[in-house]
Amino acid sequence: MTITIINGPNLNLLGRRKPEIYGSEEFSETLRKIRDKFPDTDIRYFQSNSEGEIIDLIQRENTDLSVLGIVLNPGAYAHYSYAIADAVADSAIPVVEVHISNIHAREAFRATSVTARAAEAVITGCGRKGYEMAIDYIRKSEI
Amino acid sequence: MTITIINGPNLNLLGRRKPEIYGSEEFSETLRKIRDKFPDTDIRYFQSNSEGEIIDLIQRENTDLSVLGIVLNPGAYAHYSYAIADAVADSAIPVVEVHISNIHAREAFRATSVTARAAEAVITGCGRKGYEMAIDYIRKSEI
Amino acid sequence: MTITIINGPNLNLLGRRKPEIYGSEEFSETLRKIRDKFPDTDIRYFQSNSEGEIIDLIQRENTDLSVLGIVLNPGAYAHYSYAIADAVADSAIPVVEVHISNIHAREAFRATSVTARAAEAVITGCGRKGYEMAIDYIRKSEI
Amino acid sequence: MTITIINGPNLNLLGRRKPEIYGSEEFSETLRKIRDKFPDTDIRYFQSNSEGEIIDLIQRENTDLSVLGIVLNPGAYAHYSYAIADAVADSAIPVVEVHISNIHAREAFRATSVTARAAEAVITGCGRKGYEMAIDYIRKSEI
Amino acid sequence: MTITIINGPNLNLLGRRKPEIYGSEEFSETLRKIRDKFPDTDIRYFQSNSEGEIIDLIQRENTDLSVLGIVLNPGAYAHYSYAIADAVADSAIPVVEVHISNIHAREAFRATSVTARAAEAVITGCGRKGYEMAIDYIRKSEI
Amino acid sequence: MTITIINGPNLNLLGRRKPEIYGSEEFSETLRKIRDKFPDTDIRYFQSNSEGEIIDLIQRENTDLSVLGIVLNPGAYAHYSYAIADAVADSAIPVVEVHISNIHAREAFRATSVTARAAEAVITGCGRKGYEMAIDYIRKSEI
Amino acid sequence: MTITIINGPNLNLLGRRKPEIYGSEEFSETLRKIRDKFPDTDIRYFQSNSEGEIIDLIQRENTDLSVLGIVLNPGAYAHYSYAIADAVADSAIPVVEVHISNIHAREAFRATSVTARAAEAVITGCGRKGYEMAIDYIRKSEI
Amino acid sequence: MTITIINGPNLNLLGRRKPEIYGSEEFSETLRKIRDKFPDTDIRYFQSNSEGEIIDLIQRENTDLSVLGIVLNPGAYAHYSYAIADAVADSAIPVVEVHISNIHAREAFRATSVTARAAEAVITGCGRKGYEMAIDYIRKSEI
Amino acid sequence: MTITIINGPNLNLLGRRKPEIYGSEEFSETLRKIRDKFPDTDIRYFQSNSEGEIIDLIQRENTDLSVLGIVLNPGAYAHYSYAIADAVADSAIPVVEVHISNIHAREAFRATSVTARAAEAVITGCGRKGYEMAIDYIRKSEI
Amino acid sequence: MTITIINGPNLNLLGRRKPEIYGSEEFSETLRKIRDKFPDTDIRYFQSNSEGEIIDLIQRENTDLSVLGIVLNPGAYAHYSYAIADAVADSAIPVVEVHISNIHAREAFRATSVTARAAEAVITGCGRKGYEMAIDYIRKSEI
Amino acid sequence: MTITIINGPNLNLLGRRKPEIYGSEEFSETLRKIRDKFPDTDIRYFQSNSEGEIIDLIQRENTDLSVLGIVLNPGAYAHYSYAIADAVADSAIPVVEVHISNIHAREAFRATSVTARAAEAVITGCGRKGYEMAIDYIRKSEI
Amino acid sequence: MTITIINGPNLNLLGRRKPEIYGSEEFSETLRKIRDKFPDTDIRYFQSNSEGEIIDLIQRENTDLSVLGIVLNPGAYAHYSYAIADAVADSAIPVVEVHISNIHAREAFRATSVTARAAEAVITGCGRKGYEMAIDYIRKSEI
Repeated sequence: MTITIINGPNLNLLGRRKPEIYGSEEFSETLRKIRDKFPDTDIRYFQSNSEGEIIDLIQRENTDLSVLGIVLNPGAYAHYSYAIADAVADSAIPVVEVHISNIHAREAFRATSVTARAAEAVITGCGRKGYEMAIDYIRKSEI
Repeated sequence: MTITIINGPNLNLLGRRKPEIYGSEEFSETLRKIRDKFPDTDIRYFQSNSEGEIIDLIQRENTDLSVLGIVLNPGAYAHYSYAIADAVADSAIPVVEVHISNIHAREAFRATSVTARAAEAVITGCGRKGYEMAIDYIRKSEI
Repeated sequence: MTITIINGPNLNLLGRRKPEIYGSEEFSETLRKIRDKFPDTDIRYFQSNSEGEIIDLIQRENTDLSVLGIVLNPGAYAHYSYAIADAVADSAIPVVEVHISNIHAREAFRATSVTARAAEAVITGCGRKGYEMAIDYIRKSEI
Repeated sequence: MTITIINGPNLNLLGRRKPEIYGSEEFSETLRKIRDKFPDTDIRYFQSNSEGEIIDLIQRENTDLSVLGIVLNPGAYAHYSYAIADAVADSAIPVVEVHISNIHAREAFRATSVTARAAEAVITGCGRKGYEMAIDYIRKSEI
Repeated sequence: MTITIINGPNLNLLGRRKPEIYGSEEFSETLRKIRDKFPDTDIRYFQSNSEGEIIDLIQRENTDLSVLGIVLNPGAYAHYSYAIADAVADSAIPVVEVHISNIHAREAFRATSVTARAAEAVITGCGRKGYEMAIDYIRKSEI
Repeated sequence: MTITIINGPNLNLLGRRKPEIYGSEEFSETLRKIRDKFPDTDIRYFQSNSEGEIIDLIQRENTDLSVLGIVLNPGAYAHYSYAIADAVADSAIPVVEVHISNIHAREAFRATSVTARAAEAVITGCGRKGYEMAIDYIRKSEI
Repeated sequence: MTITIINGPNLNLLGRRKPEIYGSEEFSETLRKIRDKFPDTDIRYFQSNSEGEIIDLIQRENTDLSVLGIVLNPGAYAHYSYAIADAVADSAIPVVEVHISNIHAREAFRATSVTARAAEAVITGCGRKGYEMAIDYIRKSEI
Repeated sequence: MTITIINGPNLNLLGRRKPEIYGSEEFSETLRKIRDKFPDTDIRYFQSNSEGEIIDLIQRENTDLSVLGIVLNPGAYAHYSYAIADAVADSAIPVVEVHISNIHAREAFRATSVTARAAEAVITGCGRKGYEMAIDYIRKSEI
Repeated sequence: MTITIINGPNLNLLGRRKPEIYGSEEFSETLRKIRDKFPDTDIRYFQSNSEGEIIDLIQRENTDLSVLGIVLNPGAYAHYSYAIADAVADSAIPVVEVHISNIHAREAFRATSVTARAAEAVITGCGRKGYEMAIDYIRKSEI
Repeated sequence: MTITIINGPNLNLLGRRKPEIYGSEEFSETLRKIRDKFPDTDIRYFQSNSEGEIIDLIQRENTDLSVLGIVLNPGAYAHYSYAIADAVADSAIPVVEVHISNIHAREAFRATSVTARAAEAVITGCGRKGYEMAIDYIRKSEI
Repeated sequence: MTITIINGPNLNLLGRRKPEIYGSEEFSETLRKIRDKFPDTDIRYFQSNSEGEIIDLIQRENTDLSVLGIVLNPGAYAHYSYAIADAVADSAIPVVEVHISNIHAREAFRATSVTARAAEAVITGCGRKGYEMAIDYIRKSEI
Repeated sequence: MTITIINGPNLNLLGRRKPEIYGSEEFSETLRKIRDKFPDTDIRYFQSNSEGEIIDLIQRENTDLSVLGIVLNPGAYAHYSYAIADAVADSAIPVVEVHISNIHAREAFRATSVTARAAEAVITGCGRKGYEMAIDYIRKSEI
């Protein structure tokens, strides 16, 4: 069972970028903790600054039958990339959108997410823990 | 240790209201499952159709030192109640906003949440499981 | 057979409030005339200035099997209360929205009714007679 | 005593046009029922797809002293015809605007009626019965 | 087999009107070429400056069983005539909207076509050839 | 030498329509005075409530070589008729737009004239005298 | 002689809520000072988080002949409560709107007050002293 | 009998400034012609680039009983100077606004004139002749 | 101890300008009453129709150590003068903005004050008494 | 003679993606049919999810003298990619924009195409046949 | 050879005004450094808080043949002064607009410069050095 | 000491693309001149049509300690790429945005630069010389 995390633009800088907003931990360390938490799940990880590559990734993960769902942090593309939104809408497997900070509480343009319209669910403002929550949600540990 | 769930307008009808959107389970059943999941936590529950009462509740829970945080589903008040937003902003304990359906994927007016600007985090589209996720987040089981 | 009239904020002042717009008759007198007109129908009447109470009333009337429909004059809540609109949308019995004055012919903000989107029909500008017309419509005296 | 019904564009197709929205009855049949209902009133009927002709009709009916009022369904002209709105505003006899479907509950552009600003009253969403209600209102059977 | 071309306001001036935008050929000559190209098809042609007449024409062509489809150049009515848009939406036969110039590349108001929302397809900027392409499309010479 | 006056919708009611805004003189009387003032000019006069007919008239006057220019009061069509605006733009002879009242000083929608963009000049708020001023301007009595 | 102060949502927290904006004094202390300042005036005080109760209060104070005027701090309801605005507009006694902070200098949504349109006067940014100034104004110590 | 012309910012450059739009004649020459045309009228002339001075001028001319009216070309101040608009609204003598070019046919911001709302009449696009027409209108040579 | 009143455009006409809105008292009389009220304070007074002069005045009063604060009625400049707003923001002494009428209750453009964003406090709708209240506020007679 | 088809994001999924909107045929099959139809033309084909690569392709095809024109389906990039629009505007060879579905009849954001402003022509809603029509248009089989 | 610097409103306070944004150096010192840098150029300097004077200055410098160009910092007038923008557009010599701070990175209203549309070039965010860069640009030391 | 120039989409065509706007010199020639001008500085140069690659480049140059700053011409990405804007905001070294033409003087969409909000400074309309000015600014030759 695989769940794929796709991090969008500038998220390769996590740990160094605006630590007061995004935290000071390197994402590799975050990823290690997530994998420890879900030892029975293959957590695949990609990061790209390119809109086209993110679409490629969403499409490719859809062709891999072992992939249960995608955790997508589209970064700033969330606010204007109708192309990624179309890829999410075309996805046969669930896509959960995650933002580390609360996008509703920052600049006005960040409050609108066009990709969120196409996603199944959105978790925003939960910090790095949002990734774990999204994975947990996809694994469908029902109440 | 207490965590308080506050459900806003029309959410007393859960199970009967638009089951294709909100699910067909009575919330009392959902609540029972949540309490089973967190046996060491006192899950307090309120529902009100009244904007003023929701503000009263947020304020009162803030005066109870045992309360760790609030899970707030403001229902349609999310889209215009600056008064509730002010109460959330004044809250000394974390408030996590939950919506059962993905508010970004419905009518245009639902995509904007003025209370979300004041909340710490927002979980939308995860169904009833969103409440559990919010409680889990508040309990801060760090990665 | 029951039909319920719910009057929203400031409508308890009918007869005294802006008589050049709303008429100078007390609503109790209007109500007496309406009941005379429909002797075989139980005309139930509520007025509230509170958004939450109006939602409570819409929900409660829905649980009373004898109620055929609701005549709702949401007053100024018509222009922003998505919470009442949700209650109207959730109503299993028809809700007809009535405004005494023609809301299209007054201040710009009154021309938009968010509750009207959820109602079955809207009668505006027919004065007090609008209530009678709404009741008549609900009683379905077909052409 | 005469009351004149003016139906605007595409309303000659009633019965055939989108029956799930407008009903499947031919308007001639509707008209027959209305005339049966008001045997003491001369119900005059016009339909035109032309904005200019509708203005002509409103003006002409104003010159006929026997005409008590006009029931106007401006169809889609409601949403942009300031020229018809001026004719309605210039009318010395009452004009009641009728829409068969609830214009607030459809596409966004239909929620605004510029002719409604000039009309005395508006009835929307009451189906064919709306015409009868408008006539009844004009005949002023007071409560 | 008939296909009907309806040209809207000011298109009777083609050949004389702004030839740098619309070309210098009289439309009668264009029509002759089109008829030569489709000898097995009866190409019916109407032009009107009147919104109401264009609606009349769309309705009438719908009652003629030999008519396969309509090629509609609504001229400037495209940008505001919800009445023509309703007639197009009610049409049982396909309506293809044609504009000689590229409406996206001119004044801002021309970039929005409300009739295009109701049409089956839109061809814009192909010059006079757009009419031929629309006819060809209606004749459904499949790839 | 001919100058043509075209009056748009509802302007046939001048003298009876809102005399506090438009004056109480019948337009026939106004016309008589204008003709007295310009005895050497043939003042042709048309009024129509129909958008299409106004376009027809503008086009036809353009084909009459004796016509020096057009004085156009488009009435409410000024505010939305891009079709008339196109006819004005296509006119080879000057078109001067006249409004009796000051359109900038009334309802917000009247402050925008889409036909004015295509006209050569606009005179608004000068009352009936505006027609005379427009004729005088067209006759080009240079300073 | 009575003057009534009505404080809206979250203003019961004054002294504890955002002291850098609203000051650190409990409102009971502020009230004591105000009463000291106007020993000949009965200063009545209400606070409510409920929109409906605020309307109730405005209406009730209007029925008490001893009440000279109302000092209303509608809190965040100022920005969207057309229902309170209607109650203010219906008030026969003067209503002076007070905001402790300068609402023009904060978030964009706070710069618009729909209740202010209906009030007689507005005092904003004068801190707690604004209440005293409003009372003084109502007592009409003319210049 | 005096009529005062006030020219606003950059209009001192007439004859040199964008001659393809405003003409190549010096305004002193235009003024000479106007004075020749109205030998019985004292044509007073001012030009200022300063908003405040234009207000001063409008106020001062109002205190001179010999002044019959003001011809005001506010230049670009037309589009945003609510202060000049207030001065015009306060003027006891008629103010006719003149623009040399057709302001509706240029950049979008020029189509709105806030001073025009307060003026009695507006003449735009008639070139230099507009000044003469405005004077003639003020002198009230009635039709 | 000095407090400076600066009145903006058209306020030199107070007493004569729209007395139903601004009152019929000359401002010199108002000023005399204010000075009587505060005998221990030097009330300096300026009026200017010029935006630049108002900025000059705000700056100059800031260089006079005896000046405690400024009472500024910016008139219509309030609605668009970002230059005055910058001068207010740069002021080291408090600036209280005063409007005689309630700017929220008039034309839409008057409801927005860009200078109010930079001021310390705003008093609107209190008539001439607003000046006295502002002075009183600046003198800081604390509650 | 070469004509190049460039398909944008998510169009590699044609045949599998939303077949009710885009059809169920693989694009390779569509391409085969197109090539059969134009045996004398070299139909070059590219698909990319990347905005940058689409710009690269448009530029490269411009450097190949054998390329007669480009058929561009920019997918969702049509709605915001000013960068692709600039590449289209810089193209020396004609670019015809094609959309399989009618973009005017779907979500509001799809009705605006910023790339269409730069293209020579736009064909939308003609299904797969739109590609063939665009090629045919480029080959300029004149009427 | 002369180059003229014109500083707009509030820029006479440079060195004292918001030093964290604009720097703490008096402009006289900045000017001395600039003159040292360009010993062969006559650097003329003006500052005015008045919109009208700035227009006067731009016009006057245009009449001095020795002036090579103007460096204009319009301060807050940049955001609304169409009158200055017209003066800039009429300038025969190049005008380079300079802002000390980056206007795109501050309040929303500062991101739009209507004078920049008319200027030849804009330098923003380069601090005091921006003036030197503008002068250097005007002196056209080509790459 | 290194300074890096990054040119965005379509800027590889400089010299051939719209020479009347961007000049007819190849950028390689421009670059040669710039390098001649700053012989002591290593001028690194990149061009990419890809949004993702531009982000990659900004990030990579940040990891090279020898790089003093970045001169970024984002081309059309300036108007919508919040992803590049985030990369600029995250940059530890100064980023100066350059546009060859004056973006304020062209199509409306070009007047807004979302990347400019994050940049340190912006130089627009100075032609190719803008690159040199930006480099000079980064090298901090203080006044």
